[in-house]
Amino acid sequence: MQIKLSSPLDMHLHLRDADMLKTVAPLSSYGFAGAIIMPNLVPPVTTTEALLAYKDRILSSTCRDKFEPLMTLFFKNDYSYEFLKKAKKHIFALKLYPSGITTNSDGGVSSMDIDLLRDTFETMSELNIPLLVHGETNGFVMDREMEFGSVYEQFASNFPNLKIVMEHITTAHSASLLDKYENLYATITLHHLLITLDDVAGGMLSPHLFCKPIAKRPEDRDALLKLALSAHPKVMFGSDSAPHPVDKKESCGCAAGVFTAPIALQALAMLFEKHKSLDKLQAFISDNARKIYGYKPIEKEVILENIPFTVPKSYKDVVPMFSAEKLPWSIKSVL
Amino acid sequence: MQIKLSSPLDMHLHLRDADMLKTVAPLSSYGFAGAIIMPNLVPPVTTTEALLAYKDRILSSTCRDKFEPLMTLFFKNDYSYEFLKKAKKHIFALKLYPSGITTNSDGGVSSMDIDLLRDTFETMSELNIPLLVHGETNGFVMDREMEFGSVYEQFASNFPNLKIVMEHITTAHSASLLDKYENLYATITLHHLLITLDDVAGGMLSPHLFCKPIAKRPEDRDALLKLALSAHPKVMFGSDSAPHPVDKKESCGCAAGVFTAPIALQALAMLFEKHKSLDKLQAFISDNARKIYGYKPIEKEVILENIPFTVPKSYKDVVPMFSAEKLPWSIKSVL
Repeated sequence: MQIKLSSPLDMHLHLRDADMLKTVAPLSSYGFAGAIIMPNLVPPVTTTEALLAYKDRILSSTCRDKFEPLMTLFFKNDYSYEFLKKAKKHIFALKLYPSGITTNSDGGVSSMDIDLLRDTFETMSELNIPLLVHGETNGFVMDREMEFGSVYEQFASNFPNLKIVMEHITTAHSASLLDKYENLYATITLHHLLITLDDVAGGMLSPHLFCKPIAKRPEDRDALLKLALSAHPKVMFGSDSAPHPVDKKESCGCAAGVFTAPIALQALAMLFEKHKSLDKLQAFISDNARKIYGYKPIEKEVILENIPFTVPKSYKDVVPMFSAEKLPWSIKSVL
Repeated sequence: MQIKLSSPLDMHLHLRDADMLKTVAPLSSYGFAGAIIMPNLVPPVTTTEALLAYKDRILSSTCRDKFEPLMTLFFKNDYSYEFLKKAKKHIFALKLYPSGITTNSDGGVSSMDIDLLRDTFETMSELNIPLLVHGETNGFVMDREMEFGSVYEQFASNFPNLKIVMEHITTAHSASLLDKYENLYATITLHHLLITLDDVAGGMLSPHLFCKPIAKRPEDRDALLKLALSAHPKVMFGSDSAPHPVDKKESCGCAAGVFTAPIALQALAMLFEKHKSLDKLQAFISDNARKIYGYKPIEKEVILENIPFTVPKSYKDVVPMFSAEKLPWSIKSVL
């Protein structure tokens, strides 16, 4: 049995930089036609020059695969209208991080006061630049995303012409906002469709499944599954694949992030097949994103086959989800 | 400034066995006059012979300190009346583990059906043998203890003459049961008075603070603090100090347990001082337990002094809570 996917897209991806970039970029560019690249480098990507230079480094790491990196700027509320207007042709979106909320987010926004954000949001609305948001407060870890819900609601209702993507949603509450505001969209990761806090800390502690936002309750996962398996038109796949070297994961202060880039398509096939929803996978993995962003990806055909794929224990020093386990689907060919 | 503690007791302690026992036993026997020793060895302690042999190994590891190990049997519901009657003089309590719920609990009880437990509970009531319980279901990790609440209520109401200790409680809900049932008591650990899930997984992941039951929400910690700082007469200190070698903590499948034995008194002094409750420490650390169990400990006087104590990075291969940090109180003398 085969599954044919047309131009899979990863609408939320961390490629890092330097050696890590060289390790992980080919693992995304092989199976995906494009990906939104997160700008949380050190320092963050805040200028057109830095963005274009990073794009060049990405392209030179992707083995000449047919792959388009969709570049983002790290959101700052002092970008001028002129700057954004000029930069627009190079940027796909702006990514807003609350300060200190996840890996390399220290330079992020420290207040969600819409009066402080108004100018930039209005410029973005006018220039049709989407706003991608890591939506967490600095509250109790299980409540952070839900607490941020009111911020999403304020953003959405005050800036109806701003396209807002709730990135890597993890709660039933976030899911419920999609049908409430026309201009709210969401990405969902692979791992948040599969795991709950039980998988992270219910038995032994699993550092490789530790991520931000942290995996939530079973009923939250079920709400995300419902969106993904029905290919709700406002949700897109975004892996949030976030590589860290193994010594930063299996250690005293383990960094947040699940590395899924090389196994995402195979594991999604497994998941959608299990739930008899394979007919929805194309929409979740690509078509919804095309419509939401009005984006036409590079043409790429990926054929998956139900031949078991044994996931490598690690890719260089990065341990993937399903490390050393067997998945029922493998990538047969990419054209 | 000094704090004088009379015969501190640790009413819930894991000493393990073999080399680990030799490492950790002296760290408890130095500052404590006695401790309830958990029976979850491999295999668990289920016979008088095994219990007495384990007690001997403990005593030969405690450096001739004045220290009494209060021995427990691993609860089984097929202990006969004759067996328990004969064993009674050697055992301080029976410890009930739901099967598979924590370290070395595989041989535990698989059903909390009181009809299955009735005979043993009635024997224990008659012989005045306390029941110590690890109260968690196998549900979602944040709900397990609360879900077990109805089991505690059934136990307490059906066996009013059975002394039941809810071990290492972590929730406001468990705290609320204390005043509802005369025969319900509780131990509280040091770490559950200090941390929430945020400390385990809110920033980086902290394997050395990962334990079962997992640390809960801020309002849960506050409820525990209220009990401890007021030295509620039905609560006792039980460290649940649970050593694992560092390679079992800082690794892919991190074992559950916080190692606090050597720093517990110093950290409790810090905590009670911070909350202006030093006058309640003696009751929490010893007097309540004496009354609850009708137990007269070995006489031992521990003097703490407000001279900073730098916690060792590790004790052999075991990393303690507050590793390499400075605590404001140190143990001046033990008599």
